[in-house]
Amino acid sequence: MAERSSAAPAARTMLQQCLQARLQVKPAEEQSHAQFVQIDRGMVIYICFFKGATDDILPKMVSALLNLRLCESDSGKMVSVLELPGSLLIVPQATLGGKAKGRAMQYHNNIGKEEGLRLYGAFVSLCEKELTAAAASAGVTVKHGTYGNRQVLKLDTNGPYTHLMEF
Amino acid sequence: MAERSSAAPAARTMLQQCLQARLQVKPAEEQSHAQFVQIDRGMVIYICFFKGATDDILPKMVSALLNLRLCESDSGKMVSVLELPGSLLIVPQATLGGKAKGRAMQYHNNIGKEEGLRLYGAFVSLCEKELTAAAASAGVTVKHGTYGNRQVLKLDTNGPYTHLMEF
Repeated sequence: MAERSSAAPAARTMLQQCLQARLQVKPAEEQSHAQFVQIDRGMVIYICFFKGATDDILPKMVSALLNLRLCESDSGKMVSVLELPGSLLIVPQATLGGKAKGRAMQYHNNIGKEEGLRLYGAFVSLCEKELTAAAASAGVTVKHGTYGNRQVLKLDTNGPYTHLMEF
Repeated sequence: MAERSSAAPAARTMLQQCLQARLQVKPAEEQSHAQFVQIDRGMVIYICFFKGATDDILPKMVSALLNLRLCESDSGKMVSVLELPGSLLIVPQATLGGKAKGRAMQYHNNIGKEEGLRLYGAFVSLCEKELTAAAASAGVTVKHGTYGNRQVLKLDTNGPYTHLMEF
Protein backbone atom coordinates (compact mmCIF):
# COMPACT_ATOMS: atom_id res chain seq x y z
CA MET A 1 0.00 0.00 0.00
CA ALA A 2 2.94 2.32 -0.54
CA GLU A 3 0.92 4.12 -3.17
CA ARG A 4 -1.74 5.20 -0.69
CA SER A 5 0.06 8.33 0.52
CA SER A 6 -0.01 9.86 -2.94
CA ALA A 7 -3.51 8.61 -3.78
CA ALA A 8 -6.78 9.78 -2.28
CA PRO A 9 -7.01 8.92 1.41
CA ALA A 10 -9.31 6.13 2.68
CA ALA A 11 -10.02 7.88 5.97
CA ARG A 12 -9.62 11.35 7.42
CA THR A 13 -9.31 12.03 11.15
CA MET A 14 -9.10 15.22 13.15
CA LEU A 15 -7.69 15.08 16.66
CA GLN A 16 -8.17 17.48 19.56
CA GLN A 17 -6.93 17.27 23.11
CA CYS A 18 -9.48 17.91 25.85
CA LEU A 19 -9.85 18.38 29.58
CA GLN A 20 -13.46 17.31 29.28
CA ALA A 21 -15.76 16.51 26.36
CA ARG A 22 -19.44 15.65 26.28
CA LEU A 23 -21.37 14.26 23.32
CA GLN A 24 -25.06 13.59 22.80
CA VAL A 25 -25.72 9.99 21.81
CA LYS A 26 -29.53 10.10 21.83
CA PRO A 27 -31.61 13.23 21.22
CA ALA A 28 -34.45 14.15 23.54
CA GLU A 29 -37.86 12.70 22.65
CA GLU A 30 -41.30 13.40 23.96
CA GLN A 31 -40.99 10.85 26.73
CA SER A 32 -37.24 10.94 27.35
CA HIS A 33 -34.36 13.30 27.96
CA ALA A 34 -31.34 13.44 25.67
CA GLN A 35 -28.54 11.04 26.54
CA PHE A 36 -24.88 11.98 26.67
CA VAL A 37 -21.48 10.35 27.07
CA GLN A 38 -18.56 12.17 28.61
CA ILE A 39 -14.83 11.82 29.02
CA ASP A 40 -12.40 13.78 31.13
CA ARG A 41 -8.83 14.37 30.05
CA GLY A 42 -7.96 12.75 26.76
CA MET A 43 -8.42 13.01 23.01
CA VAL A 44 -11.37 13.61 20.72
CA ILE A 45 -11.13 11.71 17.42
CA TYR A 46 -13.37 13.01 14.62
CA ILE A 47 -13.50 10.39 11.89
CA CYS A 48 -14.73 10.07 8.31
CA PHE A 49 -14.27 7.16 5.90
CA PHE A 50 -14.04 7.58 2.14
CA LYS A 51 -15.22 5.26 -0.62
CA GLY A 52 -12.90 2.30 -0.93
CA ALA A 53 -11.94 2.19 2.77
CA THR A 54 -11.55 -1.38 4.02
CA ASP A 55 -10.87 -3.13 7.32
CA ASP A 56 -7.20 -3.42 6.34
CA ILE A 57 -6.52 0.18 7.31
CA LEU A 58 -8.03 0.01 10.79
CA PRO A 59 -5.15 -1.56 12.77
CA LYS A 60 -2.67 0.91 11.28
CA MET A 61 -5.00 3.84 11.98
CA VAL A 62 -5.69 2.90 15.57
CA SER A 63 -2.02 2.18 16.26
CA ALA A 64 -0.99 5.57 14.82
CA LEU A 65 -3.68 7.62 16.57
CA LEU A 66 -3.11 6.02 19.96
CA ASN A 67 0.69 6.03 19.80
CA LEU A 68 1.46 9.38 18.19
CA ARG A 69 2.74 11.96 20.67
CA LEU A 70 -0.18 14.37 20.44
CA CYS A 71 -0.94 14.96 24.13
CA GLU A 72 0.78 17.18 26.63
CA SER A 73 1.66 15.53 29.92
CA ASP A 74 1.62 17.31 33.28
CA SER A 75 5.33 18.00 32.89
CA GLY A 76 4.77 19.59 29.47
CA LYS A 77 6.29 16.70 27.55
CA MET A 78 4.44 15.45 24.47
CA VAL A 79 3.24 11.87 24.98
CA SER A 80 0.70 9.56 23.34
CA VAL A 81 -2.84 9.19 24.65
CA LEU A 82 -1.88 5.68 25.81
CA GLU A 83 1.09 7.04 27.72
CA LEU A 84 -0.83 9.95 29.25
CA PRO A 85 -3.01 7.89 29.82
CA GLY A 86 -6.14 9.62 28.60
CA SER A 87 -9.63 8.68 27.51
CA LEU A 88 -10.99 8.72 23.96
CA LEU A 89 -14.14 10.29 22.58
CA ILE A 90 -14.78 9.09 19.03
CA VAL A 91 -17.06 11.31 16.94
CA PRO A 92 -18.32 10.15 13.53
CA GLN A 93 -18.05 13.26 11.36
CA ALA A 94 -19.13 12.82 7.75
CA THR A 95 -18.69 16.54 7.08
CA LEU A 96 -14.90 16.02 7.24
CA GLY A 97 -15.17 14.37 3.81
CA GLY A 98 -16.69 17.46 2.20
CA LYS A 99 -15.42 19.21 -0.92
CA ALA A 100 -16.51 22.68 -1.95
CA LYS A 101 -18.33 23.05 -5.24
CA GLY A 102 -19.24 26.68 -5.70
CA ARG A 103 -20.76 27.71 -2.38
CA ALA A 104 -22.07 24.25 -1.50
CA MET A 105 -20.30 21.36 0.17
CA GLN A 106 -20.51 17.98 -1.52
CA TYR A 107 -19.81 14.60 0.02
CA HIS A 108 -19.54 12.38 -3.05
CA ASN A 109 -16.35 10.67 -1.89
CA ASN A 110 -17.77 9.64 1.48
CA ILE A 111 -18.32 5.95 2.06
CA GLY A 112 -21.87 4.53 1.89
CA LYS A 113 -23.87 4.58 5.10
CA GLU A 114 -23.96 0.83 5.77
CA GLU A 115 -20.29 0.23 5.10
CA GLY A 116 -19.37 3.37 7.02
CA LEU A 117 -21.35 2.23 10.04
CA ARG A 118 -19.62 -1.16 9.95
CA LEU A 119 -16.12 0.35 9.70
CA TYR A 120 -16.92 2.88 12.42
CA GLY A 121 -18.04 0.08 14.75
CA ALA A 122 -14.88 -1.90 14.03
CA PHE A 123 -12.72 1.21 14.60
CA VAL A 124 -14.38 1.86 17.98
CA SER A 125 -13.92 -1.79 19.03
CA LEU A 126 -10.26 -1.74 18.11
CA CYS A 127 -9.71 1.50 20.09
CA GLU A 128 -11.43 -0.07 23.10
CA LYS A 129 -9.24 -3.16 22.83
CA GLU A 130 -6.00 -1.15 22.57
CA LEU A 131 -6.83 1.27 25.37
CA THR A 132 -7.97 -1.53 27.66
CA ALA A 133 -4.81 -3.52 27.01
CA ALA A 134 -2.54 -0.54 27.64
CA ALA A 135 -4.19 1.51 30.35
CA ALA A 136 -7.38 -0.06 31.71
CA SER A 137 -6.19 0.16 35.28
CA ALA A 138 -5.76 3.93 34.99
CA GLY A 139 -9.49 4.53 34.86
CA VAL A 140 -9.49 5.76 31.27
CA THR A 141 -12.27 4.85 28.90
CA VAL A 142 -13.50 4.95 25.29
CA LYS A 143 -16.77 6.72 24.56
CA HIS A 144 -18.27 7.29 21.13
CA GLY A 145 -21.05 8.99 19.23
CA THR A 146 -23.93 7.34 17.40
CA TYR A 147 -23.18 6.98 13.70
CA GLY A 148 -25.53 9.04 11.54
CA ASN A 149 -26.77 11.24 14.39
CA ARG A 150 -26.21 14.93 14.90
CA GLN A 151 -23.07 15.17 17.06
CA VAL A 152 -24.00 17.69 19.75
CA LEU A 153 -20.60 18.30 21.34
CA LYS A 154 -19.29 20.35 24.21
CA LEU A 155 -15.54 20.65 24.56
CA ASP A 156 -13.26 22.09 27.20
CA THR A 157 -9.55 22.26 26.43
CA ASN A 158 -6.26 23.53 27.69
CA GLY A 159 -5.28 24.04 24.04
CA PRO A 160 -6.86 21.66 21.53
CA TYR A 161 -3.61 21.09 19.57
CA THR A 162 -5.74 20.25 16.53
CA HIS A 163 -4.10 17.71 14.22
CA LEU A 164 -5.15 16.24 10.89
CA MET A 165 -4.23 12.65 10.06
CA GLU A 166 -5.17 10.89 6.84
CA PHE A 167 -4.80 7.18 6.09
CA MET B 1 -2.49 29.33 -9.77
CA ALA B 2 -4.33 26.46 -11.40
CA GLU B 3 -1.57 24.15 -10.25
CA ARG B 4 -2.22 24.82 -6.57
CA SER B 5 -4.93 22.19 -6.08
CA SER B 6 -2.53 19.41 -7.03
CA ALA B 7 0.48 20.95 -5.29
CA ALA B 8 1.05 21.26 -1.54
CA PRO B 9 -1.45 23.66 0.05
CA ALA B 10 -0.40 27.14 1.22
CA ALA B 11 -2.89 27.18 4.10
CA ARG B 12 -5.01 24.68 5.99
CA THR B 13 -8.20 25.62 7.82
CA MET B 14 -10.55 23.62 9.98
CA LEU B 15 -14.07 24.94 10.54
CA GLN B 16 -16.51 24.17 13.32
CA GLN B 17 -19.94 25.61 13.99
CA CYS B 18 -20.63 26.77 17.53
CA LEU B 19 -23.37 28.03 19.80
CA GLN B 20 -20.72 29.63 21.95
CA ALA B 21 -16.92 29.59 21.98
CA ARG B 22 -14.44 31.12 24.39
CA LEU B 23 -10.70 31.51 23.84
CA GLN B 24 -7.92 32.68 26.13
CA VAL B 25 -5.96 35.58 24.64
CA LYS B 26 -3.72 36.30 27.59
CA PRO B 27 -2.68 33.77 30.24
CA ALA B 28 -2.93 34.57 33.92
CA GLU B 29 0.12 36.21 35.48
CA GLU B 30 1.05 36.96 39.04
CA GLN B 31 -0.69 40.31 39.04
CA SER B 32 -3.46 39.65 36.52
CA HIS B 33 -6.20 37.20 35.61
CA ALA B 34 -6.29 35.42 32.27
CA GLN B 35 -8.14 37.29 29.51
CA PHE B 36 -10.65 35.71 27.17
CA VAL B 37 -12.64 36.57 24.08
CA GLN B 38 -15.99 34.99 23.36
CA ILE B 39 -18.49 34.64 20.54
CA ASP B 40 -22.00 33.27 20.55
CA ARG B 41 -23.47 31.53 17.54
CA GLY B 42 -21.10 31.35 14.60
CA MET B 43 -18.01 29.63 13.27
CA VAL B 44 -14.61 28.76 14.68
CA ILE B 45 -11.81 28.97 12.09
CA TYR B 46 -8.60 27.14 13.01
CA ILE B 47 -5.86 28.29 10.66
CA CYS B 48 -2.30 27.30 9.76
CA PHE B 49 -0.12 28.73 7.00
CA PHE B 50 2.54 26.70 5.20
CA LYS B 51 5.88 27.81 3.78
CA GLY B 52 5.35 29.75 0.58
CA ALA B 53 1.99 31.23 1.57
CA THR B 54 1.56 34.80 0.36
CA ASP B 55 -0.98 37.60 0.67
CA ASP B 56 -2.39 36.62 -2.73
CA ILE B 57 -4.33 33.72 -1.24
CA LEU B 58 -6.04 35.71 1.53
CA PRO B 59 -8.96 37.28 -0.40
CA LYS B 60 -9.87 33.93 -1.96
CA MET B 61 -9.63 32.18 1.43
CA VAL B 62 -11.76 34.69 3.28
CA SER B 63 -14.33 34.80 0.49
CA ALA B 64 -14.60 31.00 0.46
CA LEU B 65 -14.77 30.54 4.23
CA LEU B 66 -17.36 33.27 4.75
CA ASN B 67 -19.54 32.36 1.76
CA LEU B 68 -19.51 28.57 1.82
CA ARG B 69 -22.76 27.11 3.15
CA LEU B 70 -21.34 25.51 6.30
CA CYS B 71 -23.84 26.73 8.92
CA GLU B 72 -27.28 25.45 9.75
CA SER B 73 -29.97 28.14 9.94
CA ASP B 74 -32.90 27.99 12.35
CA SER B 75 -35.00 26.42 9.63
CA GLY B 76 -32.40 23.68 9.10
CA LYS B 77 -31.21 25.06 5.76
CA MET B 78 -27.45 25.27 5.15
CA VAL B 79 -26.32 28.89 4.80
CA SER B 80 -23.03 30.77 4.97
CA VAL B 81 -21.82 32.43 8.15
CA LEU B 82 -22.49 35.80 6.48
CA GLU B 83 -26.07 34.77 5.70
CA LEU B 84 -26.71 33.31 9.16
CA PRO B 85 -25.38 35.83 10.23
CA GLY B 86 -22.92 34.46 12.76
CA SER B 87 -19.76 35.61 14.50
CA LEU B 88 -16.24 34.34 13.85
CA LEU B 89 -13.63 33.07 16.27
CA ILE B 90 -10.26 32.76 14.54
CA VAL B 91 -7.76 30.42 16.21
CA PRO B 92 -4.12 30.27 15.06
CA GLN B 93 -3.33 26.57 15.12
CA ALA B 94 0.18 25.62 14.03
CA THR B 95 -0.40 21.98 14.96
CA LEU B 96 -2.69 21.67 11.91
CA GLY B 97 0.44 21.69 9.77
CA GLY B 98 1.91 18.64 11.47
CA LYS B 99 3.14 15.50 9.76
CA ALA B 100 3.82 12.26 11.57
CA LYS B 101 7.36 10.92 11.54
CA GLY B 102 7.46 7.75 13.54
CA ARG B 103 5.62 8.57 16.76
CA ALA B 104 6.49 12.28 16.72
CA MET B 105 4.80 15.14 14.92
CA GLN B 106 6.97 17.43 12.82
CA TYR B 107 6.11 20.90 11.58
CA HIS B 108 8.78 21.46 8.94
CA ASN B 109 6.32 22.78 6.33
CA ASN B 110 4.86 25.44 8.60
CA ILE B 111 5.55 29.03 7.74
CA GLY B 112 8.15 30.98 9.76
CA LYS B 113 6.88 32.75 12.84
CA GLU B 114 7.24 36.36 11.65
CA GLU B 115 5.70 35.78 8.26
CA GLY B 116 2.96 33.64 9.81
CA LEU B 117 2.10 36.38 12.30
CA ARG B 118 1.86 38.92 9.50
CA LEU B 119 -0.38 36.73 7.33
CA TYR B 120 -2.53 35.85 10.34
CA GLY B 121 -3.04 39.54 11.12
CA ALA B 122 -3.96 40.28 7.51
CA PHE B 123 -6.37 37.33 7.47
CA VAL B 124 -8.11 38.56 10.63
CA SER B 125 -8.39 42.12 9.23
CA LEU B 126 -9.92 40.85 6.01
CA CYS B 127 -12.46 38.74 7.92
CA GLU B 128 -13.38 41.79 10.02
CA LYS B 129 -13.83 43.90 6.89
CA GLU B 130 -16.03 41.32 5.16
CA LEU B 131 -18.20 40.57 8.17
CA THR B 132 -18.66 44.25 8.94
CA ALA B 133 -19.63 45.00 5.35
CA ALA B 134 -22.13 42.16 5.20
CA ALA B 135 -23.65 41.88 8.62
CA ALA B 136 -22.46 44.54 11.05
CA SER B 137 -25.98 45.60 11.96
CA ALA B 138 -26.82 42.08 13.11
CA GLY B 139 -24.56 42.35 16.15
CA VAL B 140 -22.09 39.75 14.97
CA THR B 141 -18.39 40.12 15.56
CA VAL B 142 -14.91 38.79 14.81
CA LYS B 143 -12.75 37.62 17.71
CA HIS B 144 -9.35 35.98 17.45
CA GLY B 145 -6.60 34.31 19.38
CA THR B 146 -3.09 35.60 20.00
CA TYR B 147 -0.62 34.18 17.47
CA GLY B 148 1.97 31.96 19.12
CA ASN B 149 0.07 31.54 22.39
CA ARG B 150 -1.48 28.39 23.79
CA GLN B 151 -5.08 28.41 22.52
CA VAL B 152 -7.12 27.56 25.61
CA LEU B 153 -10.53 26.94 24.03
CA LYS B 154 -13.99 26.09 25.29
CA LEU B 155 -16.58 25.15 22.71
CA ASP B 156 -20.30 24.52 22.86
CA THR B 157 -21.99 23.21 19.73
CA ASN B 158 -25.24 21.91 18.37
CA GLY B 159 -23.15 19.70 16.08
CA PRO B 160 -19.72 21.05 15.06
CA TYR B 161 -20.09 19.99 11.38
CA THR B 162 -16.29 19.90 11.18
CA HIS B 163 -14.94 20.79 7.73
CA LEU B 164 -11.43 20.88 6.32
CA MET B 165 -10.55 23.46 3.66
CA GLU B 166 -7.13 23.85 2.11
CA PHE B 167 -5.96 26.70 -0.13
